[in-house]
Amino acid sequence: MTPIPNSRIIYKAVPKGFPVPGEHLVYESNSASIDIDNARLHGGALVRTVYISLDPYLRGTMRDPSIQSYAAANQVGEPMKSRTICKVIRSEDPDFNPGDYVLAPNGDWSLHAVFTKADGLTKLQKPANVSLSTYAGVLGMPGLTAFLSLRAFGRMKAGETLFVSTAAGVVGSIVAQLAKLAGLKVIGSTGDDRKVEWLKEELKLDVAFNYKTTKVADVLKEHGPIDIYYDNVGGETLDVAFEHINKHGRIILCGFVTEYNKGERSSYGVKNLSSKAVSKTLSINGFVIWDIVDKEGLDAFQEEYRPLVEQGQIKYQETRYQGFEIIPEAFLAMFNGENLGKTVVAVSEE
Amino acid sequence: MTPIPNSRIIYKAVPKGFPVPGEHLVYESNSASIDIDNARLHGGALVRTVYISLDPYLRGTMRDPSIQSYAAANQVGEPMKSRTICKVIRSEDPDFNPGDYVLAPNGDWSLHAVFTKADGLTKLQKPANVSLSTYAGVLGMPGLTAFLSLRAFGRMKAGETLFVSTAAGVVGSIVAQLAKLAGLKVIGSTGDDRKVEWLKEELKLDVAFNYKTTKVADVLKEHGPIDIYYDNVGGETLDVAFEHINKHGRIILCGFVTEYNKGERSSYGVKNLSSKAVSKTLSINGFVIWDIVDKEGLDAFQEEYRPLVEQGQIKYQETRYQGFEIIPEAFLAMFNGENLGKTVVAVSEE
Repeated sequence: MTPIPNSRIIYKAVPKGFPVPGEHLVYESNSASIDIDNARLHGGALVRTVYISLDPYLRGTMRDPSIQSYAAANQVGEPMKSRTICKVIRSEDPDFNPGDYVLAPNGDWSLHAVFTKADGLTKLQKPANVSLSTYAGVLGMPGLTAFLSLRAFGRMKAGETLFVSTAAGVVGSIVAQLAKLAGLKVIGSTGDDRKVEWLKEELKLDVAFNYKTTKVADVLKEHGPIDIYYDNVGGETLDVAFEHINKHGRIILCGFVTEYNKGERSSYGVKNLSSKAVSKTLSINGFVIWDIVDKEGLDAFQEEYRPLVEQGQIKYQETRYQGFEIIPEAFLAMFNGENLGKTVVAVSEE
Repeated sequence: MTPIPNSRIIYKAVPKGFPVPGEHLVYESNSASIDIDNARLHGGALVRTVYISLDPYLRGTMRDPSIQSYAAANQVGEPMKSRTICKVIRSEDPDFNPGDYVLAPNGDWSLHAVFTKADGLTKLQKPANVSLSTYAGVLGMPGLTAFLSLRAFGRMKAGETLFVSTAAGVVGSIVAQLAKLAGLKVIGSTGDDRKVEWLKEELKLDVAFNYKTTKVADVLKEHGPIDIYYDNVGGETLDVAFEHINKHGRIILCGFVTEYNKGERSSYGVKNLSSKAVSKTLSINGFVIWDIVDKEGLDAFQEEYRPLVEQGQIKYQETRYQGFEIIPEAFLAMFNGENLGKTVVAVSEE
């Protein structure tokens, strides 16, 4: 068979603020090609990409590579990479057979690609009752993030109160639901009235509010104090949470979306951190998910958490885009707060 | 017997900055009296105070009582209170006999006093090889503070590096020595060249420096990175430690001496707390000692830690003052960095 064009999204330049479609992220339909039947596999597998996962942390990978950060920098001039869910077309690895679905943790944003186990390729089983694309969301890294961090740092007790920011986000909404299932009172903030509605009506949060129209401090004063603050935003919200947290409170630092996409880092400082943390005997844990994953945690995820999703006890939303060419715009939309739940792009048929 | 004068230190007024002897803390030799033989004991014991413990946190108890803090406010017009080590003179409680030594966790700064078990009175056994006054220091609350916090939050591993500020203080010096005994490289800061000498020569710290003449950042750049930062000062030093800590680092927040004795709270803010804690998967724990004490911890303290002190493996310094009238000046001297190790006042013979 002759080579066919291989659609790709190329990372062309380091953005200062939001990446501009066509400038920093560029769709190229035929600048590369691949020979499906004859491409060398190096002991691995040739796959067709089915879903591409878009996540806020990817903005941080679009940086000067000399700057160290927790996620490796993407390389200018190369296809962008993120988690992709793929179908095996051809394989030299006995663990992967044609027709299998696999997860590529750092997969190219290209329609076809060759991966080996060294790339972290893992086989996926089709989940019951929910879409395969949930491996990018509620059953994927965001699910693992929410579940393992609450397990490691939350020490949740029925009757306590948890506050989660970005509560309608993938991680936030899972955190909120796991806390509800554990018998906690849950307060969630989001930046969109539609999302407030979803949090109240579908997820049954005790309190949900739009932080753009209601002050966090007012809500926590009325509905707090809180025992756990699950932080997805950093900055001032974190400082407010410090004021309204109980003794022996736990603060879980998962993200810092307020610090993305600014010319400079946020200049907001948490004042008197020591006296706040000391006087209330607070435990504050930041984490990057792959630093806290272990065998025991993964087993618990499969045994305790996965059934909750498959049985519909953990609800989720997905914003799904179709086709390669829309990826740069879809990436941008994610930061505008337009998307509901997990953002994925379906680039070929399952 | 007729009543005899009962020397006391009265807390007269809330200080703005440092308490001024004779104004905020006043020695009164005969404004009260006590009848040793006939005073009513209410089922408790009449004691003679032997040692009074002076601690930096007491400054925080001299505040407007409407301000909440982790240690109860002292009452204007009453004797100051702190930990005192006393000898039982007369008792109605079968657990305390004349001649016994007892600890009063919130004992009056008076020569004689009546306490019951409701006051938290506990019996003390004379320790082997070390002074009874160590119950105010290395065998008392500071020892418990250092031992239990490292046990709860330190996760010390041989070969790691620990940095402790106020390393020549009672808690700091115990932390440093426990870390050395556990096989860690230890870096300690202090504000006095004599103390630097003691840390190097006696405690065998790997690195000790005077933060007034050497920048913390320079030392950590040369001798770091660190795995554990044991914080006794807060403020900018804490922020510097964040920059030089390894992945999976632990920050233990024990005190915030830089925030004492200022007209206002320190305005120093830790910027980008979230991104620092997240990207390095840091664990940050603040604590007040009585919030983390439990039976298991107390048993470990007696079984594992106490022998280290009695066998001389944990060294300590004590600055001892004699007599009641000097207490206000002794209290002030503690904040001027003049005292070596634990500050106690011997107010009567053992």
